[in-house]
This record gives sequence, structure tokens and C-alpha cells, in this order.
Amino acid sequence: MDLSRQGLLERYRAQVEAGLRMTLDGDGTLARIGRYHIGLEDEKGNPSQAFGKFIRPALVLFTAEEMGGKPDDALPAAVGLELVHSFSLVHDDIQDGDRTRRGRPSVWTIWGMSEAINAGDYLHSVALSTAAGSGLESIQELTRATTAMIEGQSLDLSFESRFVGEDDYLAMVDRKTGALFSCAFALGGIGAGVSSDVIARLRELGRAIGRAFQIQDDLLGVWGDGDALGKPIGSDIRQRKKSFPVALAYARAQGAERELLASVYAAESVAESEVAVVVDLMASLHVRDQVEKGVSRHSREALDLVQELPFSAAGKGELMSLIERLARRDR
Amino acid sequence: MDLSRQGLLERYRAQVEAGLRMTLDGDGTLARIGRYHIGLEDEKGNPSQAFGKFIRPALVLFTAEEMGGKPDDALPAAVGLELVHSFSLVHDDIQDGDRTRRGRPSVWTIWGMSEAINAGDYLHSVALSTAAGSGLESIQELTRATTAMIEGQSLDLSFESRFVGEDDYLAMVDRKTGALFSCAFALGGIGAGVSSDVIARLRELGRAIGRAFQIQDDLLGVWGDGDALGKPIGSDIRQRKKSFPVALAYARAQGAERELLASVYAAESVAESEVAVVVDLMASLHVRDQVEKGVSRHSREALDLVQELPFSAAGKGELMSLIERLARRDR
Repeated sequence: MDLSRQGLLERYRAQVEAGLRMTLDGDGTLARIGRYHIGLEDEKGNPSQAFGKFIRPALVLFTAEEMGGKPDDALPAAVGLELVHSFSLVHDDIQDGDRTRRGRPSVWTIWGMSEAINAGDYLHSVALSTAAGSGLESIQELTRATTAMIEGQSLDLSFESRFVGEDDYLAMVDRKTGALFSCAFALGGIGAGVSSDVIARLRELGRAIGRAFQIQDDLLGVWGDGDALGKPIGSDIRQRKKSFPVALAYARAQGAERELLASVYAAESVAESEVAVVVDLMASLHVRDQVEKGVSRHSREALDLVQELPFSAAGKGELMSLIERLARRDR
Repeated sequence: MDLSRQGLLERYRAQVEAGLRMTLDGDGTLARIGRYHIGLEDEKGNPSQAFGKFIRPALVLFTAEEMGGKPDDALPAAVGLELVHSFSLVHDDIQDGDRTRRGRPSVWTIWGMSEAINAGDYLHSVALSTAAGSGLESIQELTRATTAMIEGQSLDLSFESRFVGEDDYLAMVDRKTGALFSCAFALGGIGAGVSSDVIARLRELGRAIGRAFQIQDDLLGVWGDGDALGKPIGSDIRQRKKSFPVALAYARAQGAERELLASVYAAESVAESEVAVVVDLMASLHVRDQVEKGVSRHSREALDLVQELPFSAAGKGELMSLIERLARRDR
């Protein structure tokens, strides 16, 4: 591993930030809300650096560069992909009634539900208009992934009214989370003009990372540290999300335990005492261990794919350490 | 005018319908909601022909053909444009709390608010992915127009908290309504490979039609026949929409009349007696006459532009009669 290089995420951060600032320039309310949501500005319009990790656009630029393309050619697609991710979070917060996002008030709590719908739509449209700068194939890749992501949101919503098995869960995650990770690698490959075989393998890599990432997210939603995440502990149980731990718990529970889960997840709201009961039940069913094994399995699959793909030796090292970091993150 | 040809809208109807059916094929919930919303299916998934006039896609195909292109090349863009229009209506109905759309239950009343947000996002993404079939320039035109349309929605929303003059109103309408009409003509021109000068004039034509269309819409929102529109009479006053008649009434009202308007439009809800009072006030201020003059002015501007543009003689006749029909429609 080439120690003279910056970490993968850090290396592309400034470029992505500059691209986003340029794209969301302007005096209009929606551009302003977009800058706030992404963390480029605070609520009053003052400059800020409250943004996330920019994982997806960094993966686009990294992959483009590793496979012999120019990062500049892939930058519009990278910025577009981050904007697609951003638009989905604005709408997600409305749907889930989440009042905070990365420790700051979510868009709908400040500007109201109607304007938050507009702001998400705006980011979606600007995403595609920006990505057009990387050409038609990038647009096709990005819109396909966006459609899949939205289908994943819809599937996730449908889980509110039923318990699902691991297969259903993974089919949902491959869309909701995996599609944009797959798209990140594929857009990089498109930017470098690699063969469609390599692009197909890059998509598989993204899917494996998406699974590891989302299962770890689900783990944090039950056992994570509230302060680090910017949301309260046990929040996924409180919100009755049918995440991976719940799918496993329900599959393993028998008789009275299964009925208990069913009744908690059928109720309008979950009392604090019930959150604790569900956490205890998951402990007695050894769910956390299984969830951790799920993260490991899909991380390992991703690591194997990295080895096979035509990344440089240094690039493989960086990508593998990123995958390990994502799979072990605590926020 | 060539009397052997079908009317402009009727001529492209089957082609647009087939394109939409192909695009929204599939078993997924979101595709099904899309087919319902557009009117290709009823609530239970049975085939239906409850769709609208498909004005925008017809204008794309008409313009492409008139200017020497092949309608087939422009069909993906035409279908994409109709889907953009459709997505905006799904979100609009949530924002306005409208329970019906063309006489049928709106999407959110059947599937709930969260899934309706997803359904709109899905139609938006599928719109762009479909339009990609007409090439990069069409995507750029369509995303630019979509962004402008959303900015128009946001401006319209901001009017809830203030009275606006005619200039502000037109700036909003040029985005909310004009952008997609301009886009329709421009996409046709792009499909036929006309010069950028002609495309710029085509966009102006769309803007003029958008103004005439929206002002007529606003007229119907106050004085229209509830049965024909599928919504109750005076509904725009009841919903306190700051439409063109209100902008004119507020500009003309003095003293106590102005205060009356201000108090009605500042209230949480509007009583039936107040709807009648506002209608009477508009009558005494001769607002309807001015609104009709607005429709005429912008229709005439559109008709003049049609004359200048390189449409065939028969095409000019058809387009002019369509513009006159739109400006005189009662629903």
C-alpha cells in the first residue's frame, strides 16, 4: 500500500465539495435548501462543512482513476450520484418523520413538508442534469440505479405490514442501498471506458458492499451508540423498522416469543420497556452474533471481488481498508 | 388546413399511450401506481383509458414531424416529458391535499403519503431513463425544464404567505407551467435537428402557450363549472391559491376591500360565505374581464410565433386551432 497517498475518501473530498458548491450555486430557495441539506451551509446560509463522508462520489472518482480514466470526466457523474443520494434522504426524512439528520434539523422540520418534497425533487433533477456532463451512458447507469433505489424504498415501506425472511430483506437492500454503491463503481468504470464485463463485476462489488454497509447500519440501529449516530439508541426498534436483526429474530423466535415480537411490531407505538424486552429477546436468540456474521460474509465477498478486479495493488489495499472500515464503523 | 389529417392531439394519442404502457410495464407496486395515476389502469389493476389529453408529448411528436424529424426518434423524449408532468402531479396532490385528480382518487389517498412520494420519485426517474433513448441533448433539455418546473412549484408555495403582482405571477407561471410546454416544442426541434435559433423561438412559443393555459386554468379555478373539472366550483378561493385573479383583485382593491381580501387569504380556512364574497368583489373589480384579456394576449402572442416558425401551412393551422381550443377550454 502506497503510504504517500491520502486515504481514499479524503483524496476526493475537496473535488466533490467544489463540484457540489458549483452545482448548487444560486439565490433560489431550493438551491439554498440543497446547500443546507448537504451541509455546505448552515440554516442561515452561512458557509459550513457539516457534510457526510461523500463515499459514493469518492468511489466513482477512485474507480475512474484506478482504471485509467480522468477523474475530471467522471466528476459530473460523481456529483450527480451524491445528489441522488441526497434527494433520497430529504424524502426519507419526511417519510420516516425523522427530525434530525447527522445531528442537524432535517429539511422538513425547517421548511415544511411541501417545500421539502420540492427540495428533494429539485436535487433529483439537478442530479441528472449535472450527470449529463459525463455522457449518455452515465445517465443510463444513474437513472437505472435511482429507479432501483426507489423500488427499494417502496419494498422497505411494505415491510411495515409484514415480517420478512432473509431473502426478501436482501432483495430490498440490494435496491435501497446496493444500487447506488453498484452505480458508484459502474460510473467509475464507464468514465474509464472499461469493458461491460468489468462493469458487471464492479456492480457486484457495489452490491456486496451495500449489503455489508446496510447490515452494519441495521446493527447500529439496534445496538449503536446514540451520541455517535446523532439518533437515540434502539431507534430502529422504537420506529418498528423491519431491519435485518428483526428478520433474524422473527425467524428464530418460537411460540410466545414470536407472538411477543408480532404484537410489539403491530402496535401504533413502542414503549421504552418494550424496546428493552425486544433487545433482551434478541440477546437470548443470539441475533447480534448472526448480524455480525452477515456483515463479515458480505465484506469478505467484497474483498474477494476487489482482488479479482483490475485495480492497482495500491488501490486494492486502499479499497480493502475502506471496506473494513465501513464494516466496522460505529456511526 | 389539411382536413384529411386527424386532429393534432388525436393523431399521436395511441403512440404515446403505447410508449407509456411499455415504459411502465412490470409487476412492481410503483409501476402499478404509475399506471393507475396516468389512467392506464383502474385502482384494481384492470385496463382503463382514464388518461388526460397527452398535450405535451403530442406537441413533441408533432413538432419533430413538422420540422422534418422522425416521430419515433422523439418518442422516448415525449414519453419522458409526459412522465415528468405526471410525477409532478402526484407530488402536487400531496402538497395541496387534493383528494381527486381528473375525477378519480389521487394516489396518496389510496396508497398513503409515503408511498405517493416514492411513486412520484419513481415516475421522475423512469422519465429520465426513458428520455435517454432520444439522446443527451434531449436529457439536457428535459432536466433543465424539470428543474425550472420545480422552482415554479416552490415559488407558487411561497405565494401562500404574500400577495404578488403580475410580474411575480408570470415569473412563477413561466416555470411552473411554461417550462414543460417550452420543453415539448424544444424536444421536437431537437428530434428534428433544427438550429439553436429555432429552438429558442420554439421555447418562446411554449412559454406563451403556458401563460395562456395557466391563466385559463386560474380562470376555471374561480369561475369554472365544478362538474366538468371534477372539482368543486370556487375551489381556488377555498384553497386560498394566489392565482392570477387574486393577484389582479388585490392590485385593484382599495382600503376596506383590500383588507377584506387580506383577511380571507390569511385565515386557516375559508367559509362558503367568504368564497361568495370574494367572487362578488372580483365581479365589482371587473377581474374576470382582465383575466380573459390575459388569456387572449398570451394566446395571440403564441399564434404570432406559430406564424413565424417553420411549421408547414397545415401544421400552422392545426397548432393555431389547438391554441385557440386550449385558451377557450372549460375544463
